[in-house]
Amino acid sequence: MKIAVDAMGGDLAPAAIVRGAVDAFRQHGIEVILVGKRAAIEKELSECGASDLKIEIVHCEEVVGMDEHPASAVRKKRDSSIVVATKLVKEKKADAVVSAGSTGAQMAAALFYLGRIPGVLRPATAIPMPTIDGVSVLLDSGANVDSEPENLVQSAAMGAIYAEAVLGIKNPKVGLLNIGEEETKGNKLVTETYPLLKNSNLNFIGNIEGKDINFGKADVIVCDGFTGNVVLKTCEGLATAMFTLIKKGIQSSLIAKIGGLLVLPALRGLKKRLDYAEYGGVPLLGVDGVSLICHGRSDARAICNAVRAGARAAKQGIVAAISRELGR
Amino acid sequence: MKIAVDAMGGDLAPAAIVRGAVDAFRQHGIEVILVGKRAAIEKELSECGASDLKIEIVHCEEVVGMDEHPASAVRKKRDSSIVVATKLVKEKKADAVVSAGSTGAQMAAALFYLGRIPGVLRPATAIPMPTIDGVSVLLDSGANVDSEPENLVQSAAMGAIYAEAVLGIKNPKVGLLNIGEEETKGNKLVTETYPLLKNSNLNFIGNIEGKDINFGKADVIVCDGFTGNVVLKTCEGLATAMFTLIKKGIQSSLIAKIGGLLVLPALRGLKKRLDYAEYGGVPLLGVDGVSLICHGRSDARAICNAVRAGARAAKQGIVAAISRELGR
Repeated sequence: MKIAVDAMGGDLAPAAIVRGAVDAFRQHGIEVILVGKRAAIEKELSECGASDLKIEIVHCEEVVGMDEHPASAVRKKRDSSIVVATKLVKEKKADAVVSAGSTGAQMAAALFYLGRIPGVLRPATAIPMPTIDGVSVLLDSGANVDSEPENLVQSAAMGAIYAEAVLGIKNPKVGLLNIGEEETKGNKLVTETYPLLKNSNLNFIGNIEGKDINFGKADVIVCDGFTGNVVLKTCEGLATAMFTLIKKGIQSSLIAKIGGLLVLPALRGLKKRLDYAEYGGVPLLGVDGVSLICHGRSDARAICNAVRAGARAAKQGIVAAISRELGR
Repeated sequence: MKIAVDAMGGDLAPAAIVRGAVDAFRQHGIEVILVGKRAAIEKELSECGASDLKIEIVHCEEVVGMDEHPASAVRKKRDSSIVVATKLVKEKKADAVVSAGSTGAQMAAALFYLGRIPGVLRPATAIPMPTIDGVSVLLDSGANVDSEPENLVQSAAMGAIYAEAVLGIKNPKVGLLNIGEEETKGNKLVTETYPLLKNSNLNFIGNIEGKDINFGKADVIVCDGFTGNVVLKTCEGLATAMFTLIKKGIQSSLIAKIGGLLVLPALRGLKKRLDYAEYGGVPLLGVDGVSLICHGRSDARAICNAVRAGARAAKQGIVAAISRELGR
């Protein structure tokens, strides 16, 4: 099992990326290939005392910037870290690719160099959503902004495969994100999707509402990419706003400050639980290879977790499983 | 100024409803008309020592239940509290109606008995969203699940009028809820809506993302009713989940428990700030009269705040203002 890591992508690249890859190797024994500028990577490896580890470096000269047009950058910059790392998967030299660089570029590289699994109409991104006692997966989270019922059904099937294989959820419950529980509720898209999911072989539990997401009512939450992206970012924003207000409240008096010091460890646990970095990146499902998208702000821990998720996804054969389920 | 209050609607009716109305009268000098079963209302008035107050009761026999089909119940039950209260507005005997009963029935009653303001394509519900240092308003939040660009533009205009007149926000900033900041981002609906808002006379600040909602980047947040409803309920769910986890964290050790006692007042403030009950109900904008929808779980404070919002909306003449802006 070898995971190609784009050493140049992300706000904290290359330092945090290299460190995360080294952690995955040291702590979990996962082989990694670092893709990017050799000198920069070697410097970081030396800084974490990892120069002697059996970590392969694949050198390339270019990097796709965050402000570049994804598709054209990926086509032009053949020697960029995201393209080279993705091609390692295509050429079976790596089992998965992990990047915290431009999401658009990573998706374009996956579509262009790995391609769709035959039978998959549109790939979908599956966001791990922390719940009160575990994690669910929500998809699509932005790959498809205008979806058709068939896209949602395929997303549900791919999400269920990922939840079972990588998140270890047996026979995952699939819920359709809607504005009410009744079958007849919702907009055109979801009312047309409901009967298709009901007649599928998935463990479909019906509609779920926004308030159910963080309570883990469904393991796989299906919606169009527009709604999914808005939900994801709304959760991010609200959690940040609440932590800001909690901090402000704690600093509002001496007594609250003392109390704050005493509850801090408990609140830290909460912050960690709601931290998307814990859950190992966002898989782009439906492409012919494992590609894990990481947040631009990923630190070493996030990268390490993504490498682990990539290794698990590859080991469990999710591409083959999706192909069996949706392939033609 | 007189506000008709549906005394029979809501999980805590009639006790909490009557008490909320009494509070509005006592604390804010707002005249209220309690609509519902006279005996039940009189009993509650007596229990809060308010039998001698100048509070009018309009008796009616029926109540629309939460499980009834809204439109047909409203047409059949002419002597139900929501219908009678709404008709008081129609007949100019009240300036606004407030209810915590079936939302669908209240909307049906408003559409059927008040009717749309001529020129308004579709009424929209405007949800107050707490932000880190104030409140914004998000619309539509469920009245229209399949929206057209024109509906979003009208929602924006109505929301801006409400934000200025009732929430006291001068020249409110209007943001289009989207999945990215760039003009070209998003699904068909929002990409078609963007230029219309840009060319309107509104204070349009462009796209905002989910993460911006609770930071008050826009005062008026515009989206289709499906997305709005999902966002609203997701925020409710996440806030509840976080408070549950905070509570669990605080109870996890003796030291954390002691700390918890000391920070509790600060956290209570936070809970209150995120509590939708603070913001006085959800106006149904675009109908020819003021109708404020309250949460089914509304307590006395929520009802009192809704009565105040109703009085303010009526006093500021929002129906006339919407008619001037969108009327034909």
